[in-house]
Amino acid sequence: MNSDEKSFHMTPDEFRRYGHAVVDWIADYHARIESFSVLSQVKPGQIRASLPEDPPAQGETFDAILKDVEQLILPGVTHWQSPNFFAYFPCNASGPGILGDLLSSGLGVQGMLWSTSPACTELETHVMDWLVSMLGLPEKFLSSSSGGGVIQDTASSAALCALLAGRERATHGSSNKKGATGRLVAYVSTQTHSSLEKAAMISGIGTDNLRQIGVDDNFAMRPEALARQIKSDLRAGLTPCFVCTTIGTTSSNAMDPVAEIGKICRQHNLWLHVDAAMSGTAMLCPEFRHLQSGVELADSYNFNPHKWMFTNFDCNCFWVADRKALIQTLSILPEYLRNQATESGAVIDYRDWHIQLGRRFRSLKLWFVIRHYGVEGLQHHIREHVRLAQEFAEWVRNDDRFELAAPAPLNLVCFRHKAGDAANQTIMDRLNRSGDLFLTHTKLNGKLTLRLCVGQTNTKKRHVERAWQRIQEEAGKIGK
Amino acid sequence: MNSDEKSFHMTPDEFRRYGHAVVDWIADYHARIESFSVLSQVKPGQIRASLPEDPPAQGETFDAILKDVEQLILPGVTHWQSPNFFAYFPCNASGPGILGDLLSSGLGVQGMLWSTSPACTELETHVMDWLVSMLGLPEKFLSSSSGGGVIQDTASSAALCALLAGRERATHGSSNKKGATGRLVAYVSTQTHSSLEKAAMISGIGTDNLRQIGVDDNFAMRPEALARQIKSDLRAGLTPCFVCTTIGTTSSNAMDPVAEIGKICRQHNLWLHVDAAMSGTAMLCPEFRHLQSGVELADSYNFNPHKWMFTNFDCNCFWVADRKALIQTLSILPEYLRNQATESGAVIDYRDWHIQLGRRFRSLKLWFVIRHYGVEGLQHHIREHVRLAQEFAEWVRNDDRFELAAPAPLNLVCFRHKAGDAANQTIMDRLNRSGDLFLTHTKLNGKLTLRLCVGQTNTKKRHVERAWQRIQEEAGKIGK
Repeated sequence: MNSDEKSFHMTPDEFRRYGHAVVDWIADYHARIESFSVLSQVKPGQIRASLPEDPPAQGETFDAILKDVEQLILPGVTHWQSPNFFAYFPCNASGPGILGDLLSSGLGVQGMLWSTSPACTELETHVMDWLVSMLGLPEKFLSSSSGGGVIQDTASSAALCALLAGRERATHGSSNKKGATGRLVAYVSTQTHSSLEKAAMISGIGTDNLRQIGVDDNFAMRPEALARQIKSDLRAGLTPCFVCTTIGTTSSNAMDPVAEIGKICRQHNLWLHVDAAMSGTAMLCPEFRHLQSGVELADSYNFNPHKWMFTNFDCNCFWVADRKALIQTLSILPEYLRNQATESGAVIDYRDWHIQLGRRFRSLKLWFVIRHYGVEGLQHHIREHVRLAQEFAEWVRNDDRFELAAPAPLNLVCFRHKAGDAANQTIMDRLNRSGDLFLTHTKLNGKLTLRLCVGQTNTKKRHVERAWQRIQEEAGKIGK
Repeated sequence: MNSDEKSFHMTPDEFRRYGHAVVDWIADYHARIESFSVLSQVKPGQIRASLPEDPPAQGETFDAILKDVEQLILPGVTHWQSPNFFAYFPCNASGPGILGDLLSSGLGVQGMLWSTSPACTELETHVMDWLVSMLGLPEKFLSSSSGGGVIQDTASSAALCALLAGRERATHGSSNKKGATGRLVAYVSTQTHSSLEKAAMISGIGTDNLRQIGVDDNFAMRPEALARQIKSDLRAGLTPCFVCTTIGTTSSNAMDPVAEIGKICRQHNLWLHVDAAMSGTAMLCPEFRHLQSGVELADSYNFNPHKWMFTNFDCNCFWVADRKALIQTLSILPEYLRNQATESGAVIDYRDWHIQLGRRFRSLKLWFVIRHYGVEGLQHHIREHVRLAQEFAEWVRNDDRFELAAPAPLNLVCFRHKAGDAANQTIMDRLNRSGDLFLTHTKLNGKLTLRLCVGQTNTKKRHVERAWQRIQEEAGKIGK
C-alpha cells in the first residue's frame, strides 16, 4: 500500500454502523433520562481526573469512545432534556431538530456566501419569512420588504448586532470608521438580560453609557422614565442611539410595553430592539400576541427556537426592518470572497448579517421542526406548557406558605416561601441536590425568588405535579 | 385522550428509524459525492421558488421531508466535502466528527456555566490542553498555567475577543466602562484576514485606526514597518493596543515573522494575537512548527479544527496566555446565573471567555476526532495533503504557461497563467461551471491569481492530478 492509499478515516460501513449506534444511544438516553440526577452531582475536577493526561498517539476504537461517553462523560452531564428540568430557560430539543442538525453536519457546507451553497442561504431566508407570519410579526421584517431575517447563534450575538446597527445609524457610519466616542448612550431596563451589558462593553459604547431604566411593579420598563432619561442625555450633549425592550425578561418573564417605548424611539430616532428570546415562541399562538403589542415599531426582533421551539441549540432568529442598515454595519468584502453572484446584487450573503464569517446550514433543523410538527403541533405543545405553568401558579397561590413574586404571563413562575431568603435557598439547594428536579433562582425587589420554567419537550403534568410535591416536602422541613 | 397525553413529538421508535435513515443518507451522499457538480449551478432564487410559500399548518411525514432534501435542497448545495473541492480554505468533516456532534445534539446540554454541565466544561479544558502539546504551543496556554483554551465558533469571533482583551489591557479596563475613545490603534498586515477589519468596526476602535502594515515579497508583514508605524502613532499621542500576525494568510498562506513581531509587541506592551486558522493544523507535525517560530511571545493563538482537522464546522480553538485578562474583558454575572461552583472560584465558566452566553457541547466532536485518528492518523493525512499540494506546485513550475504567484509552504498553491487576468478569470469560470472541481481566486500584487487548496478529507492523488489535467485543458483553449 502506498501512502496515498493508507487511510485512518472511518469507512462508510463503519460510519453506518457507528452512526446507528449513536442514534440508538440517544434514543436510549432519552428513554432513561428520568433515572439520572437532573443536576450533575460531580465535584469540580472530577471529570478531568478520569481522563488520560496525554492525547492518544494511536487511534482508538469507536466502541471504546462510546463506552467512555457512558462511563466518564454522562456523570458530568446536567440533563437539560429531562422533563424534570425547570431551571433557567429551557433549551428543548426534538427528534426532527436533532436529525436536521445531523444532516447539516453530514452535508458539511459552509454558507458564508450565497454561492458557497445557495440552498443554505435560500432555505434560511425562506424559513425566516415563514416565521414572520407564524409569529404575527410585521411585514417589514420579510425579505420581500425592506427587511429580512437571519439565523444567529444566540440572542447575545443578535443583540450585539442590533446595538451596532443602532450605533452606526446614530453616528452616520462614523463609529465603524473613526471608532466609538464614549458619547453614545443605549437604554435597557434594570431587568434586561446581561448580554446587553456585554454588548455595551464589546461595542465600545461602555457600561457607563448604558442606562438601566427603572421598572414598574411588574418589572416592566417605565416608558416615562425612559423618556426623561433620553431628554436628560440629549441636554448633556450625548447621543442616544438604541433601546432594548424585552418580551419576557430572563429574571421574571416581565413584558416591556413595546408600543409606548416604540413611540419614544420613533420620536428620537433610536434603534428599537425587541428581545423575545424565550417568549417569542409563544407568539405562535395568536392568543398570546397581545404581549408583543407595538412590535410594528421595532427595528429588530429576535427569539430563540433553541429555547422553547424544539430546535436544538444553537438557533437564534433575528430580523431587521432595514436590512441595509445591518449590512452597512457589518459588511466587508476582500478580494478572495468576490464572486459573480455577490456582484450582481441579486443574492443575500449572510456573512454580512452577523459577527462571524463562516456559518453552518442551521436552517435545516428549523425547517425539519416546522415541517414535522406543523404550526398546529407547535401551538399544541406551547399551550400545554403554558397551561401547566398556570396550574403550578395556582397551586402556589393556594398555599399559605408561598407567594407569587411576579405575574406569570406564560410558562415561567416566580415564587417564594414567605420565610425569607435563607429558607428559599435551603429549599432550592435540597431539591437540586436530590436530583429529582432542577430549578434556579433570581432576585426580585432584593428578595431571593425561585423560578420554575416549564418548557422541556417531554415535561408533562405528572412532572410538574411531582415538582410541586417535592417543593412542598422541602418546605415542610423549614424551621424544623 | 386528554390534552396532556396528545403528542406531536417524534416517538423513540420513529427517532431510531429516521435516525438510521439520515445516517444512511449521509453515507450514501459521501459515496456519490463525486457525481455532483462541486459548485452548485442553480440561479439566484431557484431554490426558494421550489419551496411552498406558506408554512405547513399540519405536520408532515419524515419521508416527505427527506425526499425534499434530495430533490429540492441538494441541487442548491455546493459540495464542500467533495474531494474535488479546492476553493477558499477547506472545511473538512469526518465520521467521528459528525457522530460526536450528533451526540452533542442528542445530549442537548447548554454549557454556559460549569454547573450547567460540568463535563461540557471539563472535557473542553482537557482537550484544549491536549492540543497545546499536540501543536507544540507554549505551556503558558495550558489551563494549569496562567492561560487556557476555549472552543469558539470561528476565527472571526476569536480575533474579536483577542482585540477586545488587547483594548482593555491598553486602557486599563476603561473602554468597557467609558467606551472606546477613537484613540486606540491596532495593527495588521495588508494580507490579514478581513475579520480583523470587522473586529475593528465592532469593537469601536474603527477602521481608520487599524493600520495595515506593508508586506515583503512573500506577503509576510514587515517588522520594521510595524515598528516605525507604532512609533509614529505614539508620537501622535495615540494608544497602540494590538497586533494580529498570521500563520498562513487566507489569500496566499503567507507566514508572518512572529518572533520578530513578538519582540516589538513586548517592547511596547501590545497584545499579540496569532491567527493560524487553517495552517495551525499543520503544527501537528513537528517538521512544520518552524513556521510558527516565536509563538511563545503570543498573548493569544487560534486555529480552526473545522478547516483542516476533520472536525465539522463550527469548531475554533482559541488560547490565551493570561486568562484573567480575557475574563475581565468579557465577564458579566447577573443574579440568575449565580451558583455555588462559580462563587467558589474552583471552576471555569466559559460564558466569560466569548461573546455568546449559551454554548453547546462542542468538545465532544473534537475529542472523538482526536481519539479516532490518534496523533499518528492526523499527522498522516496532513502530511499527505501537503505532499499533494507540493506535487501540484511542481507541475505548475514545470509548465511554461504558468507561474507560481507566492511560496507554497503547505497545502495552498497560488498560481496563474502568464496571459494575464482575463485568461485566469476565464480558466477559473470554465472550471467552476464544468462542475469538475471548484477553485477560487485572490489578487496578489494586483494580479488575479488562482488558488488551489488541498485539504478535503477524501482528496487523493487522482483528484489533484485530474484538477491539473482540467486546468491544462482550459489553458489550452486560451487565446483560441
